[in-house]
Amino acid sequence: MGLFITLEGPDGSGKSTQIRRLSELVGRLEIEVQTTREPGGTPISDQIRSMLLNPENHAMTAKTEMLLYAASRAQHVAEVIRPALAAGRVILCDRYIDASLAYQATGLGLSLEEVRHINSIATDGLWPTRTYMIDVPCEIGLERAFASRGKSLDRIEQRDLEYHRRVRDQFLQIAKEEPNRIVIIDGTQPVEAVTEAIWQDLRQHLRRSG
Amino acid sequence: MGLFITLEGPDGSGKSTQIRRLSELVGRLEIEVQTTREPGGTPISDQIRSMLLNPENHAMTAKTEMLLYAASRAQHVAEVIRPALAAGRVILCDRYIDASLAYQATGLGLSLEEVRHINSIATDGLWPTRTYMIDVPCEIGLERAFASRGKSLDRIEQRDLEYHRRVRDQFLQIAKEEPNRIVIIDGTQPVEAVTEAIWQDLRQHLRRSG
Repeated sequence: MGLFITLEGPDGSGKSTQIRRLSELVGRLEIEVQTTREPGGTPISDQIRSMLLNPENHAMTAKTEMLLYAASRAQHVAEVIRPALAAGRVILCDRYIDASLAYQATGLGLSLEEVRHINSIATDGLWPTRTYMIDVPCEIGLERAFASRGKSLDRIEQRDLEYHRRVRDQFLQIAKEEPNRIVIIDGTQPVEAVTEAIWQDLRQHLRRSG
Repeated sequence: MGLFITLEGPDGSGKSTQIRRLSELVGRLEIEVQTTREPGGTPISDQIRSMLLNPENHAMTAKTEMLLYAASRAQHVAEVIRPALAAGRVILCDRYIDASLAYQATGLGLSLEEVRHINSIATDGLWPTRTYMIDVPCEIGLERAFASRGKSLDRIEQRDLEYHRRVRDQFLQIAKEEPNRIVIIDGTQPVEAVTEAIWQDLRQHLRRSG
């Protein structure tokens, strides 16, 4: 059995950079590693991703958005994550159910219990072994997202600061409730220090599962 | 408050023809009527519909399909059905939750309870007042669908006869469990006779709600 690791955190927290760097570190140990991301990760999930992030879809309701994320995740788990775990790989996944609990449940005012339940059905109850939550204040995160992509923020990023603050608070709340799974990482540190903080912890899990 | 009516039944049972005819009959009574269909009925739901029916999406899992139907329905209920009911209209809707119970739950082997629960969350518990289930043997239904559309059957219609038999059996089972909501109509009768059978019943509901 492989090892399922997720990275979470607000937009601009540097998750994708960290996944690239961690993937290289894991690979150096001659362990098979696979990186993936949500929403997306399969051709069908990518079609759903386009719908979700398209700013023209401004009429989308909270429930539709939440169910589309769950649909995309169901496909991703069945087509990519479970087969990779069965092949003994380490999966580094950019966002997963925690993101839906923060962005859709708390961010849009849906019931946490309903969102958790629907995602548990969607994934047949698959949760990561370890989750690194990279925390940065919303202002910094949004500024970075804006700087790296210019004016083309997607439908979710375009939401107001108040929304992004609720999302961040919820991420921290989830982390507090599941200290055995989730590690909070200070994302305001230099890139190298963030990688090092995650790597200190991840290395031990690789040893245990190897 | 308006009146929410759905038509259900296998492919080729003649639902869309009947909705056209019934809409005319309701309109003659000078009652505001609105017809709609699932999957679809809003621009966002139509994007989901295209994904669902595209034969190229053959890798789609049962859970992804079920969640996409629920997402499409959530948008349809919020954007079209609830506002029309609030405006006092009669809604004639081609397919609704019963179709997901038959095509996704029973047809694809998912849990009926899970599909019902997810759809209840998606729609905030909105069920039709009356459902007309037009029953035809699968062979007749598929032959009609094939004749009217030639070789371009969609991803769901392309499934084998055994699948369509399970769907029909489930439709009949649901009807048996909810005799106060669902009326089974013999769809092998001439078009006019099917309309008449539905109209006999629907007229009374219009009187009651009017």
